Order: sequence, then C-alpha cells, then structure tokens
Amino acid sequence: MNSPDQPAWLHKVQWTAEGLVPVIAQEYGSGKVLMFAWMNREALKLTADTGTAVYWSRSRNKLWHKGEESGHVQKVHEIRLDCDEDVLLLTVEQVGGIACHTGRHNCFFQKLNQGEWVTDQPVLKDPKEIYHE
Amino acid sequence: MNSPDQPAWLHKVQWTAEGLVPVIAQEYGSGKVLMFAWMNREALKLTADTGTAVYWSRSRNKLWHKGEESGHVQKVHEIRLDCDEDVLLLTVEQVGGIACHTGRHNCFFQKLNQGEWVTDQPVLKDPKEIYHE
Repeated sequence: MNSPDQPAWLHKVQWTAEGLVPVIAQEYGSGKVLMFAWMNREALKLTADTGTAVYWSRSRNKLWHKGEESGHVQKVHEIRLDCDEDVLLLTVEQVGGIACHTGRHNCFFQKLNQGEWVTDQPVLKDPKEIYHE
Repeated sequence: MNSPDQPAWLHKVQWTAEGLVPVIAQEYGSGKVLMFAWMNREALKLTADTGTAVYWSRSRNKLWHKGEESGHVQKVHEIRLDCDEDVLLLTVEQVGGIACHTGRHNCFFQKLNQGEWVTDQPVLKDPKEIYHE
C-alpha cells in the first residue's frame, strides 16, 4: 500500500468513516490557535506536497485551498499527528495575519465571560474587502 | 430556553447531531496544544461550573472528568467559541505537566518528517505509574 499518490505515511492516519480527519491550525511564532477544519487524504497530501494548507470544505463538499479567494494562504511549518492518530496539528505562518473569514486574526474571538459570549478581538479587515464576488 | 441546567450561553453552541462539540485544549502560558476531545452539553456546563475540564468520552460513552484516574486535572483559564460556533478552545493549566495518556506532555508528539512520522517528545512518566487498576 505505497504509491506516489498514496504514500505509507498517509495510511497511518485514522480517517473517519467519511474519510476525514480533524485539523487544528496553530500560528507559528505566536502559538495562537487560528482555526479548526477538516482534511481528506487528497487535502493532506496536497498540504504536505505544496507546503500550503489545503482543507476539505464539508459545507461546499470540495477541496478548499485556504487563501484561494482571500490571499490569506497558510504556509505550513509542521504537520503533527496525535497519540490516537486521528487528529492533526498544523503549525503555519498565516499570510496577511488574518485566518478567519470574519476578518479577524483567528476564529476563536468569543470568550465565555460570566455566562455570556463576549467578542474580544477586532475585525482587522472588512470581509467585503477580503472576498470579491 | 433559560434554566439553571440549560443556561442561554449553552444554546449558542452548534452541537452535532450526536449532541457533541469538538474541543481543543491549549496550555496556558506555553501556548502548546495539549489535546483534542469532545464535550456534550453536560460536560461543558460542568467544565464552566467547576473550572476543571470535563469531556465526553466517545469510546467509553460517558463523561470523562480529565484527571480522574491520573490526577492530571486541567484547570480552566478560558473557554472560547469559534466563528461558526461549533468548535471550543479551552486554555488550561495542566496539573502534573502531562496531558497525554502515553505519559507525554501533550498528544501531538508525532511530526511528519520527510515522509515519516517521527516521535520527538519524551515519555515523562510511565503510563503504568499513572494509571493504577
């Protein structure tokens, strides 16, 4: 089970029944957790081969080259696998400093504070300026 | 839809069909990603109420008070929700400095290096000494 398309290291990942694996993207340097997404085999192989993050969009049901519209590409520094071999951790350099589609640095901008979710991160760029139709 | 058992903030989370939400645990201070797990409503409420991480074990199909056997409790510093409101990020103080059941600091000890997964973190404590039957 080793071929250029399906290298051995890809088989070590424990894929879900849908052929996906959860992925955490963490910013190289700051250590901030940027976002959470999913990959299928093709996305992971493309990520490893190109050095830029490619995810699987479950809502659009297709490969999602992160930054394809926004330019906010993620340059991959490290790819890690957890103890159960069913979760990936990517360390990335976030081009543009914006990982979230809301125009914020990262997706985890809502903090639980005395029973309320409080937004504590600024919008760095208007999404209308990021995504052009 | 507000009661002591089911406070309003709990309803903001977009639970999966199984009533779960993925959770990333990050170490307060170091910023290292420790582990990935799941919570149901009860686990999240207990986590918020007690200030220590409680997950939902999908393999054992029951609440998992992290550290109940090992003593490696996670003291919760922050609870964050992402832009799609379907992923949680916890910032925690990891008691004992060991989050992984293998006796390592964290679960992401396998790094992809030239087509191979390489373990680059030491076992800090023998799991046999951590888990007593």
